[in-house]
Amino acid sequence: MQPFHPLVEDEIARVVAIVRPLFPECTLNFRYVTLKEPPKSVMIAHLEAPSSPLPRWAAVQVARTNETDMSQQLFELTVDLDNDCVLANAHVPGRHSHIDPAFMKSVEAACLADAAVQKEIKTLELPEGAAVVVEPWAYATDGMNDMSTRISICWFYARMTSNEDANYYAYPLDLCAEVSESLQVTKVYRLPSSASGKIHSTATPFDKRKIQTSTSEYHPSLRPAPRTTTKAVSITQPDGPSFTVDGNIVAWEKWTMRVGFNYREGLTLHDIRYDGRQTFYRLSLAEMFVPYGDPRTPYPRKAAFDLGNDGAGICANSLKLGCDCIGHIKYFDWCDVTSDGEPKKRENVVCCHEQDDGILWKHTNFRTGNGVVARSRILVLQTVITVSNYEYIFAFHFGQDASIHYEIRATGILSTAPIAIGDSVPFGTVVAPGVLAPYHQHLFCLRIDPAIDGHANSLVVTESAPMPLNDDTNPHGTGYITTNSTVEREAGMDLSIEKGRVFSIVNQDKINSITGTPVGYKLIPSYTQLLLSHPSSYHARRSEFGQHAVWVTKYSDDEMFPSGKYTMQSAGGEGIASAIASRTESVAAQDIVIWHTFGSTHNPRIEDWPVMPSEKMMVGLKPVNFFDASPALDVQAAGWSTTTATATNGQDATATNGTCCPKTK
Amino acid sequence: MQPFHPLVEDEIARVVAIVRPLFPECTLNFRYVTLKEPPKSVMIAHLEAPSSPLPRWAAVQVARTNETDMSQQLFELTVDLDNDCVLANAHVPGRHSHIDPAFMKSVEAACLADAAVQKEIKTLELPEGAAVVVEPWAYATDGMNDMSTRISICWFYARMTSNEDANYYAYPLDLCAEVSESLQVTKVYRLPSSASGKIHSTATPFDKRKIQTSTSEYHPSLRPAPRTTTKAVSITQPDGPSFTVDGNIVAWEKWTMRVGFNYREGLTLHDIRYDGRQTFYRLSLAEMFVPYGDPRTPYPRKAAFDLGNDGAGICANSLKLGCDCIGHIKYFDWCDVTSDGEPKKRENVVCCHEQDDGILWKHTNFRTGNGVVARSRILVLQTVITVSNYEYIFAFHFGQDASIHYEIRATGILSTAPIAIGDSVPFGTVVAPGVLAPYHQHLFCLRIDPAIDGHANSLVVTESAPMPLNDDTNPHGTGYITTNSTVEREAGMDLSIEKGRVFSIVNQDKINSITGTPVGYKLIPSYTQLLLSHPSSYHARRSEFGQHAVWVTKYSDDEMFPSGKYTMQSAGGEGIASAIASRTESVAAQDIVIWHTFGSTHNPRIEDWPVMPSEKMMVGLKPVNFFDASPALDVQAAGWSTTTATATNGQDATATNGTCCPKTK
Repeated sequence: MQPFHPLVEDEIARVVAIVRPLFPECTLNFRYVTLKEPPKSVMIAHLEAPSSPLPRWAAVQVARTNETDMSQQLFELTVDLDNDCVLANAHVPGRHSHIDPAFMKSVEAACLADAAVQKEIKTLELPEGAAVVVEPWAYATDGMNDMSTRISICWFYARMTSNEDANYYAYPLDLCAEVSESLQVTKVYRLPSSASGKIHSTATPFDKRKIQTSTSEYHPSLRPAPRTTTKAVSITQPDGPSFTVDGNIVAWEKWTMRVGFNYREGLTLHDIRYDGRQTFYRLSLAEMFVPYGDPRTPYPRKAAFDLGNDGAGICANSLKLGCDCIGHIKYFDWCDVTSDGEPKKRENVVCCHEQDDGILWKHTNFRTGNGVVARSRILVLQTVITVSNYEYIFAFHFGQDASIHYEIRATGILSTAPIAIGDSVPFGTVVAPGVLAPYHQHLFCLRIDPAIDGHANSLVVTESAPMPLNDDTNPHGTGYITTNSTVEREAGMDLSIEKGRVFSIVNQDKINSITGTPVGYKLIPSYTQLLLSHPSSYHARRSEFGQHAVWVTKYSDDEMFPSGKYTMQSAGGEGIASAIASRTESVAAQDIVIWHTFGSTHNPRIEDWPVMPSEKMMVGLKPVNFFDASPALDVQAAGWSTTTATATNGQDATATNGTCCPKTK
Repeated sequence: MQPFHPLVEDEIARVVAIVRPLFPECTLNFRYVTLKEPPKSVMIAHLEAPSSPLPRWAAVQVARTNETDMSQQLFELTVDLDNDCVLANAHVPGRHSHIDPAFMKSVEAACLADAAVQKEIKTLELPEGAAVVVEPWAYATDGMNDMSTRISICWFYARMTSNEDANYYAYPLDLCAEVSESLQVTKVYRLPSSASGKIHSTATPFDKRKIQTSTSEYHPSLRPAPRTTTKAVSITQPDGPSFTVDGNIVAWEKWTMRVGFNYREGLTLHDIRYDGRQTFYRLSLAEMFVPYGDPRTPYPRKAAFDLGNDGAGICANSLKLGCDCIGHIKYFDWCDVTSDGEPKKRENVVCCHEQDDGILWKHTNFRTGNGVVARSRILVLQTVITVSNYEYIFAFHFGQDASIHYEIRATGILSTAPIAIGDSVPFGTVVAPGVLAPYHQHLFCLRIDPAIDGHANSLVVTESAPMPLNDDTNPHGTGYITTNSTVEREAGMDLSIEKGRVFSIVNQDKINSITGTPVGYKLIPSYTQLLLSHPSSYHARRSEFGQHAVWVTKYSDDEMFPSGKYTMQSAGGEGIASAIASRTESVAAQDIVIWHTFGSTHNPRIEDWPVMPSEKMMVGLKPVNFFDASPALDVQAAGWSTTTATATNGQDATATNGTCCPKTK
């Protein structure tokens, strides 16, 4: 198998067959069977010399569900697929695995079957035909139920039609229940309404004035006819795409990279090179935290780690041609494992295609009137995930100018809560009658494992600072300089617009012969308000990466997740800040990892309802004194002269060729 | 003529014919003949009731060039085209007009013809065949030559081949000259090299080691064969575009707008409505300042107001099909005036086309597995300008979600200065042997004249702030709220990532019936370091808008330019800060204007050489509680169910239809 290639069907079957006999007389719930990337040192040796051995390992997590003490269920194993043997088998007591959809369905069923719940539903006096939908969330830790038993909190919604695609988030019900690990409903209560409201037990019927369909539904089968004004756009590549794919290796323009995919991070990229030169060893979204700002009990329990708790791979959509992606597409499949241990093929979890991206570079010589334009083409590797109500679109964009951009689009449906008509709160927006969309934040962490011309890299902070007024050196007060400082120790740092702060990853042993400075790539950050939760809160303790925008750590094979490996029910203190708190190793000219925290403080607009238009966020990585000149200089450009240009006389005109003019009619 | 329609050929001819007789026995240099937009109150009345009269006026600036005292040359007139008469004729002594290309050519010629200059050129001992190119810049004010005579500073470059498209910026020469209004060379000197270097008179020959062609040239005729790996992309609209154009009115997907164009701002947009509702009265780039950070004399004089000094309209490229724009294009022409007073048609200064923009919105119901996706289509109105060495690509993007984005791409060639091989400076990057690319800033000012459901608007500053820890109201430390404050007085304000500060333009008289809050649009700013020049510097005094990121002023027909109308040689103190300094009028619920300053601190990378890959900057305007729900909800979407979806089995696949699936093969 190619390096970083996800496990294939046969391998998963073999792993399961090896693991099962180790747990005789146990009911096993396979939580994950995924590629265990070999130690980086071993991988680097193999990438540099393919004759160097590359072990093929699987990482496995299983729960012995017949063990009644849930805190004792989990085991984690490493399986050697070269020798069909187990290298490690560890019991991990007291830990919680990511969400188990089958268990969640049991919770829903148990909740709806409960007599007390049914009694409360009756008092809601829902309209005829309305169906109650229960959506359980696993508890976020609140200091009371930490790392012990799993508790599920059940939110209630109503579907107002028999169409199962009706938007039940449009009818949040004033009801809440908690369900234990043994599927017992332990609490049933009514939710707060006003800003100072509390949970209570006063039965209030559903307010029929809340029913309105003009803005609540999004599914075409429940909508009036759509606008018909948008004419088709056809995007084709008559000569085929510019990329080639060999297994998990994608080659495009001068880029090569290896595509990985796993249950937790979803799409990962590895061994990324431009024109053969190393740039990044591994790029991945490492975590994402969505804390809600509604302080009223029980809402502080709404705080999701969408990677650690849910899994970007597990939640990946099967992408549809013409919808999620248009043009000439290469899809990548992925093989997951069922809880029963069966390989489960997931089609089209990643799409790969090219896009025209406007003008790459242009110059017109004003003396001759002659211009030269090169069009920009980008390669897009995209994946889309659904985490209950929300959708996220993750895409890496590779440029011909050796830039890499990472775009996130947030879309989907707001998580809603009931509110009495007439009430308002300062921590949420009323998006429809009786529907509160609480404020929340999306904090993503992009893990950047660089290899700028090798693995010994440094993080340099550059700031642009005015020169002091000085009759000799700055007589007109116009001068400014840059200052550079190399980060010596592991740290979390913040952005500064005021100082024009730029974070660059450089290789101090590789000096650009022209500029005289180390070769590097700089981070183009996404400017974001950081975590708003109080530092003492469990939210803050569990999401340490939300404290700073940029972190640098020394590479460790075991440090992949900035909120720790076990985010479900975690009590905190296992994230990136805790990891580096007592370490003092140098990170200058070392194998380092950069972590960028970004996202949005999402205070909903009504325009985000019922499905929000994509909210885009973009992070960039650009070469800075890495090359000898613009790497886009050799992209085919068209020059024209004032004498040969074809005038189009202000009329409508169509050019179908993306290379360039003068090929007009 | 339609409201806001630029003057047409016939009108310009009539204006010139009316103006000429007013200046008998004068040699006239027509600096501009442009539409004078009628007072806003008159225009609003006409837009609301077309029977209300709409005067057609021209604004004219002429210089009597036979007047030897340059400070006495300028006149400004208003011509009434309905009655073929002059409404106003003002002498504007002491003012300078924008750059006169014909005069600049005279400066070049005079400079090269000067014996002292030729003597210095000889001492450079340039290689055989090298041609010297002189590029004059009009002085930026330095406190010595303010508002009096125009002085041109001449930079010297060499073109190393006979090909006139060779990149002479690659060979900046160690020579500088100053030329007077009467075309006399008043100074010739050598430039500083090291960081502490000064101008001097020591003749040093050109260092032949600086000659290298591998990275200096960009024109295809001087480059090796380009990469051939990029396969064509064909973008067509078989059923035609979704937009219609009637004169200067563009209608597209519920948007309507009127396209304007003038010599100074270039592309302007007017009376922008969504679904008939007013959103913005006028959007335009109002100014742009490019100060260089090299403090050494004479470089502080490099500080260009590219709109006020050069003119975005005057510098507009004639766009080429297949190069600047691909797809189905509508071009707009523009009629300029020559210095002799002849109408001069400029073709294709604006292109209008649609683009697919990825996923507009998506949701998959995880219970049914059924998904719905809508593709995003945007309408792009783009113009490209060349200001000597640099290019700027300006584009408005209209979205189906009622968003407007303004994208600027910076490309072109860095302004260069000579540096001795081996020298380095802390305020510039050596991008090729002997070629210094000094640090500089690009500060743009987007003028936003809003009409959010009418003209009485307010600017509201919203911040997201943690709630204090409190056992009752915020027991878990997770709550946060927004605070809103209406800006009461004209002011300049800054962005704050830390506070999640959002600037919204609202109509406090129009309350959204669902959210209970005023309808509005919010600014999505581009985060930028502000002006680095010392507050006491002429740079700072002349570019007041660079002091703050967001300004609000009360609308005035006369306030269009945030550095004042006359930026050429200005002594400062005429910008937006000075204008509002002593005013105390309310800007709450008034006709207001928002000015957003953004751009980049551009410390060149070698990758920006010889033509820089486009550097993108983006500003957004998004509805916030303006509608009753997502305005993109009625965009045609495709839903699919897990049972009917067409699997593509991980194979390559092509979808040419942008509407949506399931229409796959």
